Parts: sequence; structure tokens; C-alpha cells
Amino acid sequence: MNAITLQSTQSSKLLLTDVQTRNLHPGEVRVLIKAAALNHRDEWCRQGLYPNIQDGVVLGSDGAGVVTEIGKGVDYGLLDKEVIINPALNWGENQKVQGPNFEILGMPRNGTLAESVIVPVDRLYEKPAHMTWEEAAALPLAGLTAFRALTYQGNIQAGENLLVTGFGGGVAQFAVQFGLALGAKVSTSSSSTEKLEKAKALGVSTTFNYLDHNWISKAMEVTNGFDLIIDGAVGDTLNHLIQVAKPGGKIVFYGATLGNPSKLEARKIFWNQLKIMGTTMGSDQDFKNMVSFVNEKKIKPIIDQVFGFDKAEEAFNRMRDGKQTGKIVLVP
Amino acid sequence: MNAITLQSTQSSKLLLTDVQTRNLHPGEVRVLIKAAALNHRDEWCRQGLYPNIQDGVVLGSDGAGVVTEIGKGVDYGLLDKEVIINPALNWGENQKVQGPNFEILGMPRNGTLAESVIVPVDRLYEKPAHMTWEEAAALPLAGLTAFRALTYQGNIQAGENLLVTGFGGGVAQFAVQFGLALGAKVSTSSSSTEKLEKAKALGVSTTFNYLDHNWISKAMEVTNGFDLIIDGAVGDTLNHLIQVAKPGGKIVFYGATLGNPSKLEARKIFWNQLKIMGTTMGSDQDFKNMVSFVNEKKIKPIIDQVFGFDKAEEAFNRMRDGKQTGKIVLVP
Repeated sequence: MNAITLQSTQSSKLLLTDVQTRNLHPGEVRVLIKAAALNHRDEWCRQGLYPNIQDGVVLGSDGAGVVTEIGKGVDYGLLDKEVIINPALNWGENQKVQGPNFEILGMPRNGTLAESVIVPVDRLYEKPAHMTWEEAAALPLAGLTAFRALTYQGNIQAGENLLVTGFGGGVAQFAVQFGLALGAKVSTSSSSTEKLEKAKALGVSTTFNYLDHNWISKAMEVTNGFDLIIDGAVGDTLNHLIQVAKPGGKIVFYGATLGNPSKLEARKIFWNQLKIMGTTMGSDQDFKNMVSFVNEKKIKPIIDQVFGFDKAEEAFNRMRDGKQTGKIVLVP
Repeated sequence: MNAITLQSTQSSKLLLTDVQTRNLHPGEVRVLIKAAALNHRDEWCRQGLYPNIQDGVVLGSDGAGVVTEIGKGVDYGLLDKEVIINPALNWGENQKVQGPNFEILGMPRNGTLAESVIVPVDRLYEKPAHMTWEEAAALPLAGLTAFRALTYQGNIQAGENLLVTGFGGGVAQFAVQFGLALGAKVSTSSSSTEKLEKAKALGVSTTFNYLDHNWISKAMEVTNGFDLIIDGAVGDTLNHLIQVAKPGGKIVFYGATLGNPSKLEARKIFWNQLKIMGTTMGSDQDFKNMVSFVNEKKIKPIIDQVFGFDKAEEAFNRMRDGKQTGKIVLVP
């Protein structure tokens, strides 16, 4: 089958090539991919910035498709079902944190950027009926991460002030949509006026361009501080977030695209009783809750652009350059 | 009455002097001080490191004594009662964080390092019967801070691994004693072998001297990581604490005697889903819960040394130099 693999010898580090499929183990299913979606993780893998990178692996964590083959022990009723895949494998029983066997689909296990993917049957969820294939493929990883950040970690309540930084990225997009659906007063930030216009169109009341040096004082004027901030950048902007957090508030971050901060205002954290919390993906319970929520609220992921597999390099470069608003989707 | 006041013109910045008492306002009581205790806050005030420092104020947040006079509206039954004082004023209703009118007894309001102190009647709690006056005076501020850090913020559970850094300080001492009484597996650290011996005598299973460069690997060997870490130092040691936190664990800090850290390992925080939380003092509910707990478990504060008011400078210097194990008490 055709698949997008990581190949360090290629100048693009990517190779669309024929990959041998294998037989199913008991409890596994084969899913014919209708659409797959990119995450920053795929780009980090391409750049070799992930631990245990292996050449030749099929990339991709997000996918939606149809069950075409089932392994021993799997219910026959699943054949031909339209599904999405939970890319978080072996989280374990602890809701607080993934266990030592945790794995994400797409490295080192072959992922979704292929004509088909093999996964354990318990990773399958019914495709939300209100979504296209592209939308369904865009949901899993970023939707899961945003939902856990907002609910299990952030415990957001209706009427609270929520700031989602970096609108445009997949997790940020879902955090904004979920936050609005949960009744929060949602603000978002970006360096792109165009992206902020798109956020306003979604119903976001307040937007901030963080290139504007006054954004912090403006944010405090408008909101009097945020109960919850969802961030994926960290770096020295963490101290700006500490300034706009309401006393007793939380900053939950799911990544650190700007790296480590070079200082931390400790006194403000303890005196204002702030919580700075890290989060990654989510448990099976989080995924189940997220899918129910998305179905109930009829939320549709925002699709930035759809590429064919032959345009994989272009798609990855768009992710690398941060040009997208919403999810970048690839179809076989 | 005699009182220890802040006087910037004195070389010691302290002056034991006669201070005019005032009449009671409605709802207030006068407490004759039997014993008072020092907190780092008093030393910060002496060094001018607190906001809104005012010369001439009577220092001291911790005190225990006898009600000798009651203001209008106060129940006559309170006269002659033996009490301790909750030094947290006007916390407000929000359990997450103190409100804008929050104040700590002892600056700018006259405090407990005096022959008597005036406080609102709702700050009084019955003196725990199993404590001496010196012990009762040692409990309020540090006991409250430690209890909130462990329970409301840290949500410590029996059997969990708890690390309390900097054994010797007031809050650390209570965090160790409360942690043991709550059934946690308690470890503590210090740079002083002598202090660590005292911790072992309390029942602490594992102690670490943080001057030993191997303490991190030793801690990981013995405990496999801490569910909760209570710290008052921060500085660059925060990154050591991040290393010894169990995935899903919490670091709660109530102060930052070492100042701000010069970096922060963001990736470890989000991948291990750690929580870094600030805490300060506690709500009225926290204080009430703490006093009940201390009475139920018959916990007695550790007293480092008792000084007369005329030895105030010596007492403050001992706090400044970090020589104490347990609370430094002053008696009029």
C-alpha cells in the first residue's frame, strides 16, 4: 500500500512509497483510511526532535476510515463500520498520567498517513455522523488534548474567562470551540490578524495580537484576568500569562514550541495561588467524553486545507511554518 | 504596653517600646498575649522586603493568650477564654484565593509581639488543650500554610510519597508532622545533618541532604518519585524537584526564599503532567480544618527556642540565619 514514511536520506525527510502490510494479530483491526490529519508531532518526527525516531516508519496519528478486516477475537459486527481512531495507546488506568507503556500512533508504530492502518480494536470510535471524513480525521489527537486540558486539568466552568493562546494550531482551535460550547467567555491570541478574524467569526468575544506590546494591559482591562489559560508555547511568554492569570487561576500547557522560559515569577505564583500544569493527550475516559461532547454539541473541526498524499511535503511545510488555521488534512 | 515595633532608625530595625493601646471597636476583642511566635514574614518586614512597610507597627502574626476585654456585640462568654488567633484577615469567600482586602496580622495592623493585641472576634479559636502556651502560639500561620498546601492544594492521600524540603522552617516542620499524621510516606531534605536527625526522630523514613549531589538519584531509587512536594525555596532547585516528582505529581510552594528559577524544564512538566502550584496562608475553612485535625491527632508544634521580648533581635537573627528547627517563640 502507499504510505508516507520518514526517510532521513530524502531532502524532504518524507517518502511516499509502497509499504508491505502485515497480517493482523488477535484483537487488531485494519482500517482503510479515508482521511488523515497532521499534528505538530508529525513535524517534530520529521525534524528528528522526537525520542526513538526510526527510519521507514509510516507517520500520522490522526485518521478516519472504514474497518475492512478484523483479527481473531474481534466482533464481526465491526466490519464495514465508519470509525475514527484514538491515537493514544496503552495509557493505563491512572487518570492523572499515562503509564510507562504509553505510545502514540505514528512512531514507532506505523501510523495513519497510509492507505490503511492496523490498530487494536479498542482504539476505534464511531465516526461522528455530523462530520465529513476530513473533519472526522482532524478530531482525535488535538481534540483529545484540548478536551483534557480544558476539563480534566482546567476544570473550566460556564461564565469563566478562558484565554487560548496561538489560535490557528489544532489544539488551540479545539480549545476555543470547546470553550465556547462549555459556556466560557473565550479570548484568543495570535500574531496574525487574519487568524484572529477567523476566531471572531467563531464567536470569540475578545482577541489579542501578542505582537502588540499593550496586549497584557488590554487583556486585564477587558477581562480582569483569566480563570484558565490554555497554551502550547511556554518560552518567556509564560511570564506574560502569569501576569494575565486571575488570582487562583490556572495555566495549562500542552507543548512548548518556544522552549523553556528563562525565568519564572515565583512570588506572583504563590501570592496569587496560581497553578501551572502540564498536560499531554488524554486517557481513554477523556477520549470517550470528548467524542460524546462533540456529538452532543455538533462541533465540527476547522479544516485549513486538504492535500493529496503526493503533496505531503507541502502539507508538512505549511505546518512547520505555522501558516494554518485549523487542521491540515491528507487524503490517500 | 510593651511591644516589639519596627523602627528603621534602629540598627536592629527593632525597638521594644511602650505603645499606646486604643479602645476596642464593635466586634473586636483584646487578647493578653501569653506567647507569640516568629515567621519568615516578620524577618522580611524587618528587612523592608514586604510591600507597604510602615514604621512603628507592632510586628508578629502568631499569638496565643487570654481574652481580657470585648467590644460591643461580642459574647460575654468569651471573656477569660484561652485562645489562639487566626492571623489571616478578610480572606473572603473564595476558597481558591484570598480576596483584595486580605491582610495578615502584624503589618500594617499591629500584631502579636506585644503584651496584648486587638483582633476581630471571628479570628479567635479555642487554644488546643494539649498544647502549652508556647506551642499554641507556634501553630497558627505556619500550621495554616502547611495544612492548606498538603490538603486543599496537594490533596495528599495516605500511602503517597511526600517530600518536604528545608526541614527546620516552620511550615516544613508542620508539613512533615501533618503528612505523617495523614499516613503519607514522608521524606524531608535539609543541608543540616542535625536537622535531619531531628526529622528522623519524628518518624520520617527518608531524609536527604541536598548538598549531596547524588540526592536526586538516591531519592528516585528509594521512592520512585514523589506524589507531592512541599517547598518554600524555589530558585533553581525547582528543576531538581521537577526531576524527583512522580509523573502526575504536584509541587506546591508557599514561598521562594531562593528567588526565581533561571529556567524551567517545560517539556518534562507537560510530558509528565506535573502541576506546579503556589499557595499562601489559607482560608477560614482551612484554619478551622487545621485546628480540628491538630486536636484530633494531638499534634504538638516543635519549639526551637523561647526568647523574652528583650531578646527580640537575637530571635530575629536566628530566623534570618536559618538556624532554627521548629518555631521561635517570644514571651512578653
